[in-house]
Amino acid sequence: MPRKITSLQVAERAGVSQSAVSRVFTNGASASPATAAKVKKAAAELGYRPNAMARAMITGKSRMIGLVVAYLENQFYPEAVERLSNALQERGYHVLMFMASPTAGDGVQDVMEEILDHQVEGIVLASVSMSSSLSTRCAEHGIPVVLFNREQDDARMSSITTDNYGGGFAIGTHFAELGHKRIGYIAGFEEASTQRDRERGFRDGLAASGLELSAREAGNFLYADARAAALEMCAGTDRPDAIFVCNDHMAFAVMDALRFKLGLRVPEDISVAGFDDVPIAAWPAYDLTSYRQPINRMVAQTVEALMQRIEDPTRPAHRAKLEGALIQRGSTAPAKG
Amino acid sequence: MPRKITSLQVAERAGVSQSAVSRVFTNGASASPATAAKVKKAAAELGYRPNAMARAMITGKSRMIGLVVAYLENQFYPEAVERLSNALQERGYHVLMFMASPTAGDGVQDVMEEILDHQVEGIVLASVSMSSSLSTRCAEHGIPVVLFNREQDDARMSSITTDNYGGGFAIGTHFAELGHKRIGYIAGFEEASTQRDRERGFRDGLAASGLELSAREAGNFLYADARAAALEMCAGTDRPDAIFVCNDHMAFAVMDALRFKLGLRVPEDISVAGFDDVPIAAWPAYDLTSYRQPINRMVAQTVEALMQRIEDPTRPAHRAKLEGALIQRGSTAPAKG
Repeated sequence: MPRKITSLQVAERAGVSQSAVSRVFTNGASASPATAAKVKKAAAELGYRPNAMARAMITGKSRMIGLVVAYLENQFYPEAVERLSNALQERGYHVLMFMASPTAGDGVQDVMEEILDHQVEGIVLASVSMSSSLSTRCAEHGIPVVLFNREQDDARMSSITTDNYGGGFAIGTHFAELGHKRIGYIAGFEEASTQRDRERGFRDGLAASGLELSAREAGNFLYADARAAALEMCAGTDRPDAIFVCNDHMAFAVMDALRFKLGLRVPEDISVAGFDDVPIAAWPAYDLTSYRQPINRMVAQTVEALMQRIEDPTRPAHRAKLEGALIQRGSTAPAKG
Repeated sequence: MPRKITSLQVAERAGVSQSAVSRVFTNGASASPATAAKVKKAAAELGYRPNAMARAMITGKSRMIGLVVAYLENQFYPEAVERLSNALQERGYHVLMFMASPTAGDGVQDVMEEILDHQVEGIVLASVSMSSSLSTRCAEHGIPVVLFNREQDDARMSSITTDNYGGGFAIGTHFAELGHKRIGYIAGFEEASTQRDRERGFRDGLAASGLELSAREAGNFLYADARAAALEMCAGTDRPDAIFVCNDHMAFAVMDALRFKLGLRVPEDISVAGFDDVPIAAWPAYDLTSYRQPINRMVAQTVEALMQRIEDPTRPAHRAKLEGALIQRGSTAPAKG
C-alpha cells in the first residue's frame, strides 16, 4: 500500500538530473536557485519528501539525540525532558529515549550498543553516569555527550549543573539565620554528584555559622525511602528542628511523614527545605522552601553544548555550573524561643 | 577518528562472503549455524556491529516508535512514557519523542512530516488526536497508529483507554451513596474524548440516583485553570458539597484552593474526587479518592497493538476499553446531617 514518490520521479517532472534533486535536499550541498525552485515545485506537486534515513545514510546525520533517563517520577525530569524535546525540535532534532537503571554503577552500559547503533548525533545523560570506557567509545565515534544535572571527572564530556555546592551552602546559611541549632540532613543516592555537592555545601554553610549536622539519613531520591528516613530521624524525642532534604521529591515525603504520621507541624515544630523547586513545591499543600534549579538555562546550555560540538567536533567539552536561587516559602520559619 | 569495522573485514576474518555476514545480522534471514558461529566470533574479535541505520535501509525496519505527547506536567503522562519506553526497549524498540500542542485541533499536524521522515514503525499518540487526512497518510505508509488515553471515530487507528464512562458513573454513584445533593463538576479540555466520556458517565451515574449537576466549570486539564474554576464554583455561599474533578492533576489544584484560599475543609465541608490515581493521589497531603486507570495494562495493550500490526499490517485496529477501579480515600466522606 505505501505509495512512495522517488527522487527519480521528481527529477523527471522537474526536468533535472536525479543527483540535482538529491543536492537540493541535502543541507550544505550546492544547487543553483533556479534548479532548487524547479525541484521544490515538482516535489510539492508530487508530495515528495526525501526520507530522513536515506539522507542520514548519505550525510551521516540522523537528526536524533539519544536521551538516557533513569526514572521520571521526580517531577524535575519530566519537566526537563519536555523542555529539552521542545528546544531540540525547534532545531530539527528529535529525542530518542533510552531507559537506564538509576542505581546501577554504570546505568548506560545496557543501552550503549543500541544508542551507537541508531547513530545519534549526540547523547544527553539525565541523572545517570557513564564509565570512562564508554566515554572513550563515544569520543571515538565523534559523538558529543552532555551530562545533565550530573558531573563527572572526565574532560571529554560536557556537563550542565546548577551550583549544587552553593545551593547547599545557601540552605545551611538560611537555617543558621533562622536560629536553628539541631540540624538534620536527608541524603539522595550516595553515588550521585548532586547529592555529594549539596551535602558538602550544606555542611560548609552550617560550619560557617559554627553549626554542624546532628542527624543524617539516606533517602536515595525515592519517596518511600525518604519517608522511612524521616520517621527514623524524627519519631524519637531528640529530633532536629530543621531538615534539609536533598531534593523536593523526597521533601514532600518528609513533610507528609512529619505531618500525617507523627502529628508534627511544619514549620512550627520542624522547618523543612528541599532542592530543585519543581512546580509542586509552590502548591499551597507544601509551600516548600527550596533552592531553584534554573531549568530553562540548563536546557538551553545543554542544547548549545550539543549543537556546537556537532558542528565542530574539535571543540572542547563545555562544563557549566549555573547559579540558582533560594526560594523562601512557608515550610521554614525562625526557631522558637 | 571514528574507526569503523566493516562487514567486509568481518567476512575476511571469518573466511565467508560479505553477504553471509549480512545474513547473520539480519533478523529472519537464514545462515547455517556453522557460518553464524564463525561470523559472530570474528565480529566479536573485531568489535563489529551492523549499524541500525544500514539495517533499516535494507529491511525497512527502524526499530523506532514515534511518541507524540502534548505536555508532561500531569504526572499520568511521565509515568506512561516511562513504562512505555521500558516495555518497548525490552522488545528492541525505542521511543522517538515528538512534542505537540495540547490544545490545537490537530496537534500532530506540525510534526507529522518529521515523524514519517524518520520512518518510525508505529505511532503512539498520548493525549493528542489526529485528523482523518493524517490518519489516511499513516495508513498509506503502512504505519499503525495507537491512541493512548484517547478515542476517535476512525477505524484505522487502535485506541487504548480506560472505561472513562464507567469511571465517571462510579464517581456519580459514590457521591449519591454518600448522600451528597449539590454536585459540582470541573471539566477537562472540552475537545478530549476522556473529558466527554467521564462527564457523560458522571451525569448518568447521578441521574440513576435522581441527582443532577448543580454547578459546572472548565479546568482544561491545567492546574491554574482548575484553581480558578474552584474559586468560581465555591467562593460564594451556594457552593456544592461534592465535586468531581476530571483528573487528579486538577483535583490537587481544587483541594489546594478550597483549603488554603477559601479555608474550607476537605472532606468535612466538601468532598473531592479525581480520575487517574497518579502516585501523588496516595500522598497523605491529598489522600484523594480517584478512579484508577490501569496504566500497566494500558501500556501492555498499546505495545501489543503496535507489535501485532507491525508484524501483520492486514490486522484490524485494536480498540480496548479497560476496566479501572474506584479507589476510596479520605477526600470523600458522607454528607453532614
